[in-house]
Amino acid sequence: MFIIESYHTVKSRYEALKARNMMLDISRGKPGPDQLDLAGPMLNVLTQEDYLSDSGTDCRNYGGIEGIPEMRRIFADILDVNVPEVIAGGNSSLNSMFDRIADFCLHGVCGGEPWRQQGVVKFICPSPGYDRHFNICEYFNIRMIPIEMTESGPDMDAAEALIQSDPSVKGMWCVPVYSNPTGCVYTDETIGRIARLKPKASDFRLFWDNAYTVHNFAEDRPRIPNILAECAKNGNADMPLMFASFSKISFPGAGVSAVAASENNIRHILKQISVQTVGPDKLNQLRHVRFFKNADGVYAHMKKTAAVIKPKFDTVLSALENELSGLCEWSKPKGGYFIHFRAKDNCAKRIAKLCAEAGLIITEAGAVYPYKRDPRDRDLRIAPTYAGVDELRSAMEIFCAAVKLSYEETMESRNTST
Amino acid sequence: MFIIESYHTVKSRYEALKARNMMLDISRGKPGPDQLDLAGPMLNVLTQEDYLSDSGTDCRNYGGIEGIPEMRRIFADILDVNVPEVIAGGNSSLNSMFDRIADFCLHGVCGGEPWRQQGVVKFICPSPGYDRHFNICEYFNIRMIPIEMTESGPDMDAAEALIQSDPSVKGMWCVPVYSNPTGCVYTDETIGRIARLKPKASDFRLFWDNAYTVHNFAEDRPRIPNILAECAKNGNADMPLMFASFSKISFPGAGVSAVAASENNIRHILKQISVQTVGPDKLNQLRHVRFFKNADGVYAHMKKTAAVIKPKFDTVLSALENELSGLCEWSKPKGGYFIHFRAKDNCAKRIAKLCAEAGLIITEAGAVYPYKRDPRDRDLRIAPTYAGVDELRSAMEIFCAAVKLSYEETMESRNTST
Repeated sequence: MFIIESYHTVKSRYEALKARNMMLDISRGKPGPDQLDLAGPMLNVLTQEDYLSDSGTDCRNYGGIEGIPEMRRIFADILDVNVPEVIAGGNSSLNSMFDRIADFCLHGVCGGEPWRQQGVVKFICPSPGYDRHFNICEYFNIRMIPIEMTESGPDMDAAEALIQSDPSVKGMWCVPVYSNPTGCVYTDETIGRIARLKPKASDFRLFWDNAYTVHNFAEDRPRIPNILAECAKNGNADMPLMFASFSKISFPGAGVSAVAASENNIRHILKQISVQTVGPDKLNQLRHVRFFKNADGVYAHMKKTAAVIKPKFDTVLSALENELSGLCEWSKPKGGYFIHFRAKDNCAKRIAKLCAEAGLIITEAGAVYPYKRDPRDRDLRIAPTYAGVDELRSAMEIFCAAVKLSYEETMESRNTST
Repeated sequence: MFIIESYHTVKSRYEALKARNMMLDISRGKPGPDQLDLAGPMLNVLTQEDYLSDSGTDCRNYGGIEGIPEMRRIFADILDVNVPEVIAGGNSSLNSMFDRIADFCLHGVCGGEPWRQQGVVKFICPSPGYDRHFNICEYFNIRMIPIEMTESGPDMDAAEALIQSDPSVKGMWCVPVYSNPTGCVYTDETIGRIARLKPKASDFRLFWDNAYTVHNFAEDRPRIPNILAECAKNGNADMPLMFASFSKISFPGAGVSAVAASENNIRHILKQISVQTVGPDKLNQLRHVRFFKNADGVYAHMKKTAAVIKPKFDTVLSALENELSGLCEWSKPKGGYFIHFRAKDNCAKRIAKLCAEAGLIITEAGAVYPYKRDPRDRDLRIAPTYAGVDELRSAMEIFCAAVKLSYEETMESRNTST
């Protein structure tokens, strides 16, 4: 049942919305000001007299490249790992991933042969996935091999076939909880298969971007198996590099990032960091420690965050339900930052263009695929968190009208060409 | 007049100091707690309502990879450059230098051939110099060519001969104001010769680490020619990369760094940064803007800083004057963080060892030379800023006793061997 309204009805509806000259943006996973206000007290939680960590470190001064103990403890608890397996760093986990790859290219993995001297290097990219991961690969000229992102996680048949046979496959991107953009949480079975991988390349690394592990809407957060422990059990202790950050817990520009890995990996990473810097911003770590206190403080904060975010997701989802039911598919995530929208083949670019022309910016069509190449031109990402609920209603009016118009256009052109 | 006390007098004095079991550290250029207290109010200068930059940017959120305009303005004024030539970044200028070199190795300079594909890459290292610069070179396997650091700056005859003839010379480290460790301020003539260099390598870059430009003890800060403008005048607009930071102005762990360069360089750097991160910690930049307000605020703050630091330098210098006059040479800097101490040949390592055995840590002997190779084993670096004046007095007692003992030991061994 594709056609529920005539082309002209849909077209005039779209034109009327366009005439409103709105400027709306649901393209990026940015928290809204209402959400950021929740962490407002963090801005002046420190005082002139409060700059010492529990261990007596003056957080104002140089040093402590592994981060302050209290901050590492919070990360360890959230990520279900041990404190010595965690480095608490600067404001950006993306930066940390970028730095790891730059280092592997130039210096190899844990003292191995630099990737740059090994010819072609490939990464497995479950798709749709996170565009900034793909941008990093493109920047370092790492060849991206897309595999399907299913409802239980990456297509593990494909992943195993590639990783276990091809020594040039050096990495795989994973967002195991509320995957960007599909919202999928990897199943225990998927994680088990990942942990049991026998990579052909001895310097293969799993880039485990645990960005949304505490970003649940419902009461209970998803508990996935600890990838460090699972890998260690299977003789793969050094395979995973886990990343996380407070960017979407406290402030996106001023959070704290972490990398968690085997102590062997951590030792090599610290060696690199100790040449690169004299230490992270420990005052910002202390600020987080004072505000959140501990992992329970983080969970409590995320409940407040969910109360701000969930109505935004609900607004988008009910608009989709009301307007596009039966016409398209979309994810109904229980956490994270995105809704994955799947249109008919060959419509995604057209929908994004129609949206833009009517004043609504959505994530660029194709962006959720390596090289921006969506093979069927059908996947889009909606990021509901930045806008207010009223703006989202307006945004979804445009979005839904654009979807319908793009569908009608393909029908029209088919009718015309017959 | 080397021998002013007998070996036994000196030896027993040293042993008496050693018996005090002190633990003192004058190894690193770390501000002391008294100095850090000066910036204390910065810790809670922001409030829950104060997070917008002048341009209306929400500093809590993502974005703004070039830094907030007000912070760029402060850097531009201090460094005597234009705002579009400045990127305000994270907490570490060392990190920024490291990242530039990593990028040049992998992606080349401004789109040129990656250094890694060009065989041997060399950097000119005026020595004695900054150990962390040398560590970066060593990490990236960049061959370091030491040249002499004179009282007017690098030995420019040597610099020109190397840079203008050898295409594998890709960089030179410069700390133009209160050079680490000699305290030298490059003369206008030296800077003119640097700006007029005609490097054989088209992808040669000057790493101009302007770390101490406002760190003067006396009333007037040294005004050196603006290297960006001087280079541009001589057809070398893209040659210099200037670095600076607030690490020794506000907080070493929680300052703000900057890179300043031609708009062409800045464009390429932003391209790299935009893959690496979604933006710097803009809240910390805003914190600096609120506290310092503008460049004049920085200069006023540095006067207070000088009032804390100068007595420490005076303590060290008067101890050296009283104890070692005529025996050794040392710098009498008008700013910066270090005193450069020059002992007799073949004594530096022994002095450092004697100090350590008596509980005083000084910068590792040799550290101020590439590969830690002081060809004459005579240069040491004293960092007076961290300790208090009383501790410095004790430290200098040990240091001077160690110097004298090392001298007596060489005399003794000479006497014994004849």
